[in-house]
Amino acid sequence: MPIKSILNAESVAIVGASKDPTKRGFQTIQSLIDEKYEGRIYPVNPKEKKILGFPCYKKISDIEGPIDIALIALPARLVPAILDECGQKGINGAVILAVGFGETNAQGKALEEKTLAIAQKNNIRLIGPNTSGMMNIHSGLNLVGLRDTPKGSIGLLSQSGNMALTLITEARLKSLKGFSYYIGVGNEADIKFHEYLTFLKNDPKTNVILIYVEGMREGRKFLQQAYQTSIKKPIVLLKSGRSEIGQRSAGSHTGALAGMSEVARTAFQRAGIIVIEKSDQLFPAAETLACLPTLKKNQVAILADGGGHATIGADILTELSIDVPELSEKTQNKLKTILPQAASVSNPIDIAGGADADPTVFADCAEILLKDKNISGLLVVGLFGGYGIRFSESLGLMEEDAAHRMGKLVKKTKKPIVVHSLYGSEKSHPLHLLRYYNIPVYDSLDVAAKCIGVLWEYENYHNSYHVKTNFVLNPGAKRKPEAIEIINKAKNEGRSVLLEHEAKRLLALHGAPVTRDLLAKTAGEAVLFSKNLNGGMALKIVSPDILHKSDARGVKVSLRTEKEIRKAYSEIIKNAKAFKPDADIRGILVSPMADEGTEVIIGTKIDDQFGPVIMFGIGGIMVEILKDVAFRVLPISYNAAKKMIQEIRSYPILKGTRGKRPGDERALRRLLLTCSDIIESYEEIREMDLNPVIVHEKGISIVDARIIL
Amino acid sequence: MPIKSILNAESVAIVGASKDPTKRGFQTIQSLIDEKYEGRIYPVNPKEKKILGFPCYKKISDIEGPIDIALIALPARLVPAILDECGQKGINGAVILAVGFGETNAQGKALEEKTLAIAQKNNIRLIGPNTSGMMNIHSGLNLVGLRDTPKGSIGLLSQSGNMALTLITEARLKSLKGFSYYIGVGNEADIKFHEYLTFLKNDPKTNVILIYVEGMREGRKFLQQAYQTSIKKPIVLLKSGRSEIGQRSAGSHTGALAGMSEVARTAFQRAGIIVIEKSDQLFPAAETLACLPTLKKNQVAILADGGGHATIGADILTELSIDVPELSEKTQNKLKTILPQAASVSNPIDIAGGADADPTVFADCAEILLKDKNISGLLVVGLFGGYGIRFSESLGLMEEDAAHRMGKLVKKTKKPIVVHSLYGSEKSHPLHLLRYYNIPVYDSLDVAAKCIGVLWEYENYHNSYHVKTNFVLNPGAKRKPEAIEIINKAKNEGRSVLLEHEAKRLLALHGAPVTRDLLAKTAGEAVLFSKNLNGGMALKIVSPDILHKSDARGVKVSLRTEKEIRKAYSEIIKNAKAFKPDADIRGILVSPMADEGTEVIIGTKIDDQFGPVIMFGIGGIMVEILKDVAFRVLPISYNAAKKMIQEIRSYPILKGTRGKRPGDERALRRLLLTCSDIIESYEEIREMDLNPVIVHEKGISIVDARIIL
Repeated sequence: MPIKSILNAESVAIVGASKDPTKRGFQTIQSLIDEKYEGRIYPVNPKEKKILGFPCYKKISDIEGPIDIALIALPARLVPAILDECGQKGINGAVILAVGFGETNAQGKALEEKTLAIAQKNNIRLIGPNTSGMMNIHSGLNLVGLRDTPKGSIGLLSQSGNMALTLITEARLKSLKGFSYYIGVGNEADIKFHEYLTFLKNDPKTNVILIYVEGMREGRKFLQQAYQTSIKKPIVLLKSGRSEIGQRSAGSHTGALAGMSEVARTAFQRAGIIVIEKSDQLFPAAETLACLPTLKKNQVAILADGGGHATIGADILTELSIDVPELSEKTQNKLKTILPQAASVSNPIDIAGGADADPTVFADCAEILLKDKNISGLLVVGLFGGYGIRFSESLGLMEEDAAHRMGKLVKKTKKPIVVHSLYGSEKSHPLHLLRYYNIPVYDSLDVAAKCIGVLWEYENYHNSYHVKTNFVLNPGAKRKPEAIEIINKAKNEGRSVLLEHEAKRLLALHGAPVTRDLLAKTAGEAVLFSKNLNGGMALKIVSPDILHKSDARGVKVSLRTEKEIRKAYSEIIKNAKAFKPDADIRGILVSPMADEGTEVIIGTKIDDQFGPVIMFGIGGIMVEILKDVAFRVLPISYNAAKKMIQEIRSYPILKGTRGKRPGDERALRRLLLTCSDIIESYEEIREMDLNPVIVHEKGISIVDARIIL
Repeated sequence: MPIKSILNAESVAIVGASKDPTKRGFQTIQSLIDEKYEGRIYPVNPKEKKILGFPCYKKISDIEGPIDIALIALPARLVPAILDECGQKGINGAVILAVGFGETNAQGKALEEKTLAIAQKNNIRLIGPNTSGMMNIHSGLNLVGLRDTPKGSIGLLSQSGNMALTLITEARLKSLKGFSYYIGVGNEADIKFHEYLTFLKNDPKTNVILIYVEGMREGRKFLQQAYQTSIKKPIVLLKSGRSEIGQRSAGSHTGALAGMSEVARTAFQRAGIIVIEKSDQLFPAAETLACLPTLKKNQVAILADGGGHATIGADILTELSIDVPELSEKTQNKLKTILPQAASVSNPIDIAGGADADPTVFADCAEILLKDKNISGLLVVGLFGGYGIRFSESLGLMEEDAAHRMGKLVKKTKKPIVVHSLYGSEKSHPLHLLRYYNIPVYDSLDVAAKCIGVLWEYENYHNSYHVKTNFVLNPGAKRKPEAIEIINKAKNEGRSVLLEHEAKRLLALHGAPVTRDLLAKTAGEAVLFSKNLNGGMALKIVSPDILHKSDARGVKVSLRTEKEIRKAYSEIIKNAKAFKPDADIRGILVSPMADEGTEVIIGTKIDDQFGPVIMFGIGGIMVEILKDVAFRVLPISYNAAKKMIQEIRSYPILKGTRGKRPGDERALRRLLLTCSDIIESYEEIREMDLNPVIVHEKGISIVDARIIL
């Protein structure tokens, strides 16, 4: 049964209906009545005859008509049996409220698996368990028991019932916007985030999607769907559980990797999602995107009555990378004609009391500013909406006039206006009018500034949208028979790690520039091999029992003479045996020393939520101490490789600085793409570490490589 | 006349009184009446006989009784003459509202200077100009014309009238707390920030000081006074104009230095000031400090009804470096007995619907948590205050009970509780009760978390308070006659830069570890000198005409043989002459190459607002690319030197990493202190750059030094 039919159910059975007003089995029926749900309502409770005027059924099978969906308001242990009853009745959708499933312990997890199996057997799609429920706001199908959810076009997906309650309450109290659907995704036992997203993408009543998430079951599928959705409708998302304690609280077991939230943030942004970090900006960002046209260019004017708000506004926008460009002389002159002498007509504009006698000057200024070709949007900050409250009714009427004009101005120019007003939470008719015209109003300057910022972020994503960034892995695409042999050999030997020369060979098979190494079995071979190579040599132990070669003193570098090589060979063997007497020594790898250049590190891992990811950073201090690294979910495009390299803080080192020539970025990008190909091709590979890789002025050398299966 | 008498004036003349309700000359009289000001009110206007029931005087001199203060509500150009009249009448304080002074242009600046001179001649202290006025909230001396400012204990200093209006309106709408005084400091033509601070420090009605500032006239004096004040009363401050555009808007000409705001932030924090970055956290932080005991230890419990709020709360506190420690088993067991099975009793606590039938469980949990020795404060997040609104009146009454109990609990345990409630801006009687008990309530989770954070920040400042950090320079303290000679010689030659050997000599006079350099006039001398020194040599051009020696190819390093030295000598001379044919070449400095170690940079400058400041960073990429530097206002203590070194991100490099031995931090601290001494001793020095300084495992070497007069 498609999710669409569940979310638009025309008949609902309330299993566990109750006469006790504190119970969900009562509250839900009450709210279906309150919200004027036009579908059929069937309470089920063996002990009751009638609840809130509806006849009550002893069993689901007693219900005569067809039923689209069951709300199961019973304890966890009773759920599997009820689902069997639902199946027998032909019900294809169920909302399971109960806690006590996978979020608790192994027993709960088993119960969840059993529940899912029974649902699948019966062709029932499940919302939850561990959810506050689901609401179709427009049809009145309210299975949450929360009253007065405002209607609108924001589709809400939340992993937390109280965050949903917060967002809905915030909308009701502070906004004229509302919701199309609310879905508490709960444990995602059956229907996953990305499936809801697919539905909302195609739903005509939804134009913005708002998501609160702690951790996902199917992160990669979510990215794939988000990427297809965000190009059509904005997705605004807050991910909590960023801190270790937050993760502990979220009950997420995905947080082992440090920098995990950085992986998520980058991945979400690449999928076109507007990622919000502050919970009080979450609803406002969605509201603004639901209300206003985007900012066509990164150019915002600030209009203030008072220098303080102007200055703070400019600070915040700058910190958000939103430009507050200087105005043209023509625009400045126009402003001068209507503003007092004390006003500042350079952006940010301070009207300096210029509205004290007539607040319509706000609309005059807005018209002048939005007519300027170099201004794409307007942030009004400070006092608008309060002149009538503070001074006199007549000023309030003028504010209303200004509100009407600004509202129409947005429509006409298709340029957005966002308003900060310190009277934002007061009953102010001019502010009510602004909201009526889809101009959002906030009483926090930080929030208002962020909101105009997201209008540029969404537009900017469209500008940089790449069809190739689709998060779809093509497993096995470029597998090489010899590489598979190498992997199988390791497996057959019971190894989960490829030896250095094996790893390098695998890389070389995909065209990666590894050093031309040779595996010597004797000191004599090492000397012979070194004659075939130029410059200094490095000797490295090769043993499945010694993974950290330096720890076993198994590496010697910058060897030039035959004597040095022989000495190094015997020392390495000695050290290795001292380190692990019974070590299986396969030989010693003879490598030419790489030319000079910048040391970088490339690594891949399997992220619990998103699958394969790649990491890049500049070697040594930058990675180890400053944690200056970039992450991407694989596969990556050439463009993503480019951005990854350029977004680390220490990028200027690679670009060339202090007399050093620039490194070969093109070769580095190619190597990142090769790594992406390799990880795509061999699902066997769990981790790959190229460390160090030397980026030369021309070309690049992989000096050491490790591959973990 | 002391500022105290001005701010507590018992009689006020309104010069520029008016019958027009839109004019300040009317509004002020109206608000004095409304606020029941008990002092005498004298309107002055040659054209009126009576205003709002008060007889109106033609001239100030017509007023019979004595007058404490004049509010001058007239245009800028009329102010000087009025001040003369005030002086003749014996008035000792004036508030000047007019704009058009120093904030505009040279003409305005001249007018401001003239105004100040006349005031000083007449023994009048000035508030403003360019101010919205001043209010003594408790006495009703309201010279702002703003109605209904709530009374309380927060002293407000603001450089922006509309920010003051914002804060006062916020207090009125969202809090039960209020203000003792508001002073619009305006242009600080006469009375400066630090003088108001001195007054508020001693004022018994004020217990928290709230400051909004863009730029200061006397930054150092402010720091000195803040440092003495903050140990008695918390100071909460927001500095805007952090961004370049913000600075442009603030009309501040202090922003030339990049990192300027970083200097300010560190300086403010060292003076014990709570620095706020987000304008919507400014009043709440002050309110919380005015309401609650501090957090005695960095240990906060989070109490939520719902996992979402719990997780987000933990994320935010972690980002604020506030600890959310695990609870003792005993405490967890106590919680278990009163909470449902689904609840999470590890911190953050999620009661998981445990209040649905009885919200007094919040108070039960609060009692258990605050009894735990390892918990110093509580952040309640989510839904409290809304159970009555959402469900039933009886739940609301239980919430009231809980509010009473939590209020008393804070009093009894002296541990703070801060509440986030999504009903924070609703009329909720339980929330009203909390506020009555001095428990602040916010509808933003970010704001509430920040507020419990500042309770630790203030306590922690007390813990780390150092009497020596007093920001007082002791000019000339350690002047050396020979150093003065060096400086005078340069001055006499018309130079503003000391030559390298001069700078190093000056440093050496103060015990700084400079390299043992010798100035050679011939290649032969260079060879001779090099024989007295060990290891490799560096040769560097010495010329007042060549400041950037490398640019002129005037440096050669790692010279070992006589031949190398002779060759280098002649090449340097040749290069210097090619660079500037008529360069005044004083010779060539012969320096031993420093031993290896970590390169660091130390610099000093004169900051426009705070005077001498010092900068420290690790040389090369860390400073140049990553801008990883620490600033301090001079002088510094040993402890400040230590913290400065340790607060840069790249500190681990110095501490020893990747097999490198740690650098001699003690020697580095001593050098920072020596720099502090030198800058204190010679007011002639405007800038000093030690770059590079090599920190060895033992000891430290200043390789190059530049001093600008």
